[in-house]
Amino acid sequence: MQSASVEAERAAGGPTALDTAIGEFRAALPDGAVITDPQRLRTYECDGLASHRVVPAVVVLPETAEQVRDVVRACAAHEIPFVARGSGTGLSGGALPHSSGVLVVTSKMRRILEIDTANERAVVEPGVINLDVTKAAAPHGYYFAPDPSSQQVCSVGGNVAENSGGAHCLKYGFTVNHILGMEVVTPDGELVELGSDARDAPGYDLLGAFIGSEGTLGVVTKITVRLLRKPESVQTLLAGFPSTDEAGAAVSAIIADGVTPAAIEMMDALAIEAAEQAVQCGYPDGAGAVLVVELDGPAAEVEHTFTEVERHCRAHGAFEIRVAADDAERAMIWKGRKSAFAAVGRISPDYIVQDGVIPRTALPEVLGRIARLSSESGVRVANVFHAGDGNLHPLVLFDDAEPGAGERAEAVSGAILDLCIEHGGSITGEHGVGADKVKYMGRMFTADDLDTMQRVRCAFDPVGICNPGKVFPTPRLCGEVPGRRTGVHPLTEAGLADQF
Amino acid sequence: MQSASVEAERAAGGPTALDTAIGEFRAALPDGAVITDPQRLRTYECDGLASHRVVPAVVVLPETAEQVRDVVRACAAHEIPFVARGSGTGLSGGALPHSSGVLVVTSKMRRILEIDTANERAVVEPGVINLDVTKAAAPHGYYFAPDPSSQQVCSVGGNVAENSGGAHCLKYGFTVNHILGMEVVTPDGELVELGSDARDAPGYDLLGAFIGSEGTLGVVTKITVRLLRKPESVQTLLAGFPSTDEAGAAVSAIIADGVTPAAIEMMDALAIEAAEQAVQCGYPDGAGAVLVVELDGPAAEVEHTFTEVERHCRAHGAFEIRVAADDAERAMIWKGRKSAFAAVGRISPDYIVQDGVIPRTALPEVLGRIARLSSESGVRVANVFHAGDGNLHPLVLFDDAEPGAGERAEAVSGAILDLCIEHGGSITGEHGVGADKVKYMGRMFTADDLDTMQRVRCAFDPVGICNPGKVFPTPRLCGEVPGRRTGVHPLTEAGLADQF
Repeated sequence: MQSASVEAERAAGGPTALDTAIGEFRAALPDGAVITDPQRLRTYECDGLASHRVVPAVVVLPETAEQVRDVVRACAAHEIPFVARGSGTGLSGGALPHSSGVLVVTSKMRRILEIDTANERAVVEPGVINLDVTKAAAPHGYYFAPDPSSQQVCSVGGNVAENSGGAHCLKYGFTVNHILGMEVVTPDGELVELGSDARDAPGYDLLGAFIGSEGTLGVVTKITVRLLRKPESVQTLLAGFPSTDEAGAAVSAIIADGVTPAAIEMMDALAIEAAEQAVQCGYPDGAGAVLVVELDGPAAEVEHTFTEVERHCRAHGAFEIRVAADDAERAMIWKGRKSAFAAVGRISPDYIVQDGVIPRTALPEVLGRIARLSSESGVRVANVFHAGDGNLHPLVLFDDAEPGAGERAEAVSGAILDLCIEHGGSITGEHGVGADKVKYMGRMFTADDLDTMQRVRCAFDPVGICNPGKVFPTPRLCGEVPGRRTGVHPLTEAGLADQF
Repeated sequence: MQSASVEAERAAGGPTALDTAIGEFRAALPDGAVITDPQRLRTYECDGLASHRVVPAVVVLPETAEQVRDVVRACAAHEIPFVARGSGTGLSGGALPHSSGVLVVTSKMRRILEIDTANERAVVEPGVINLDVTKAAAPHGYYFAPDPSSQQVCSVGGNVAENSGGAHCLKYGFTVNHILGMEVVTPDGELVELGSDARDAPGYDLLGAFIGSEGTLGVVTKITVRLLRKPESVQTLLAGFPSTDEAGAAVSAIIADGVTPAAIEMMDALAIEAAEQAVQCGYPDGAGAVLVVELDGPAAEVEHTFTEVERHCRAHGAFEIRVAADDAERAMIWKGRKSAFAAVGRISPDYIVQDGVIPRTALPEVLGRIARLSSESGVRVANVFHAGDGNLHPLVLFDDAEPGAGERAEAVSGAILDLCIEHGGSITGEHGVGADKVKYMGRMFTADDLDTMQRVRCAFDPVGICNPGKVFPTPRLCGEVPGRRTGVHPLTEAGLADQF
């Protein structure tokens, strides 16, 4: 259902399919849960990727799985596109609305249904805030491991959609490693269970395909997450190095020694400068790079491996090493790291947060190439990243008031992704493809690879109403014969071209 | 392509589609790689589930991914069913051939292409034997974690198809947790990459859906596996208990204490008796149950947690605890456990190896119910299982020479699966559904759940030629409208009904 045809129907005087669907939403949902007021709709025009904005035609705020199902059924019946949104903190525009579609906001689905420590799991609704799971589990000595920087505000449903990571996914993996089962509404309005209470279920593991599918396969309505026991001991170390070269070599040496820290984070000089200005975190003076290394586990193990980590840092040129003596010092070390993105706003009026992955062994080479890109283009790049994972977060700085600066920054940002692909990496580590990186998918995957994914999308969503236009660059019409693509999907390329 | 129509075509005097395809296989493959001799075909009539036997129409032995692709393309062009087979050690009949189809045997694809310890991974062909990966990685201090009991003979491709586990998957997870990327041939003959060298790839994680799909989504031709560093220390303990009740309580106490052993295996009196007769493993006299608990990791941690495990065992009634002093003693403890399945042949002429999962907390209740089933029916059941995972392997004993004994054993075996489902578990932990457990899928999943999986199957395999008849009970005709099922799939239910 495109804007053009909605207008045509309205011009013809009859109720549009959307009008009919809105009537069905109102019948299915509580009072006030269907928003069509233009002022209020504007609140939802973007997620964390503020460069992309689209006002949805209607917003719904369901409170139960059955209400989500009823909304999706109405969408399917009238072929109206819908987009699910949790807290709207995503950085790739995955929850960017569709101008003639429905935005399904899960923020009223915030119940923690069960904390089951005997089986080390919790059952939550999709709108539950990431950190609230840990808060609920903490009295029992447990926590929920995925820890994106936005964990105080982002939703577990959003974590599922984006397969969110965080500083500690080096040791603990991504969201996909912490979800045991889910209830989802498929794009044709069926309420189904994915995964199982048991550890390995028969049939296809569609849990894995659904997690990280960025809202294109359905809407999650209930999530069984794995809870981890809080480690007996946590130790955090901050090490200052002359440059990222030495810091990178220290990372390789630590990993090669068989140590898997809970986190190894790196920041370069520009990122350190920004963080210092913002939060006075007291990072080592004159450091060209810092490493934050955190170890957790049984006290005996942590003590032993901590000595090893310290030794590797010194052997690779660390000139200052500081160990957090208590929780307050630990929090201060992390405050610098976690505030880095926002802090960059203090040293640059505008910036792009990039997200790419490279094999860890390619770190020194790629960092060198990024530095060269920066010096050749005159565009400053601050580097903050999950070094242990090879997950880069280059911050590309610019001043939008300066003519052409935005374009130059975009060019550098894109060239960094090309570097990632060239080195066998990926165009996104944890922020997703969303609306933002659709154009890079063709650089990373062959047509056959993309076609295989598209077929799965069509299997779930034959009509193409579920978050259309996201993730995939050249959607095929479902049911069309492969190799004979005759047109673009009406709801995707053409639809989005109208909007941007 | 059913037998009936093959015969009809042959009767009409022309070459059948299968004849044409065989000609294409010969053109694409090396000399001797296409087998049609009935005597030689008989070698492949079953996998590890010897109760199901079907002679394939033709066997091919490709040596490269391109040859696999060419075979599958010919199958797709002529709508001929195909089944992939690794070493044929599967226990659910997943590699059971199709009587009018092709068996694609990967045993000539045995090259280890790369051992990359810097990035902690290896690249192997699908026919490579599981243990050979570890052998190749061992000189570098690494190993491949999935360790099914058949690891000396089973193939990595087979592990991928079945998402194989093993004694150590309590701590290390299943095969799916150790695969980083794969090259596969889809059922229409496209060679595509799934997964990525980077830790989290954009697009759908079809790797997860493919792993454990039991050969129904395509044929894997290259596998990038994760290598783990050999732990600094391994400690193995054997504890004798009066009964499975006390042993089960010890397991719960260990896990509740936050310890994750590499393995916790349990055997009951009957399984101990069988293992003693077969390999004289010297398990504690008079034990009603034994636990094998293995801890691995940094020496400091292992030492600390080992004391805890010992304490929990004693507190829950262990009357004898033996700690392996060296590798030889460790091997002897494991020999008893690993030989248990085969050893049961010494105390019973015939037996069924069952495989089911329950939440760990339901262990005492379910073991009690199994004992009652056994005493009420007079059918002996030996229990050997991955206790930490709640993955049961009841061995149901019978004598096929005794009239009705096989049926009674089947009934008990099926009732055990019902118990697993009833307690929120699963009908298979690691052996798969294959041809064996198709009939139980409908008890475990709703029609909507199964339909969602079927749609994915159709997305990959619209014609229904890729391991038809396995896993799913009521396959729909791909492309048919959900809810309007008018007939069975010609290649699946009807085709298999001919065969059994």
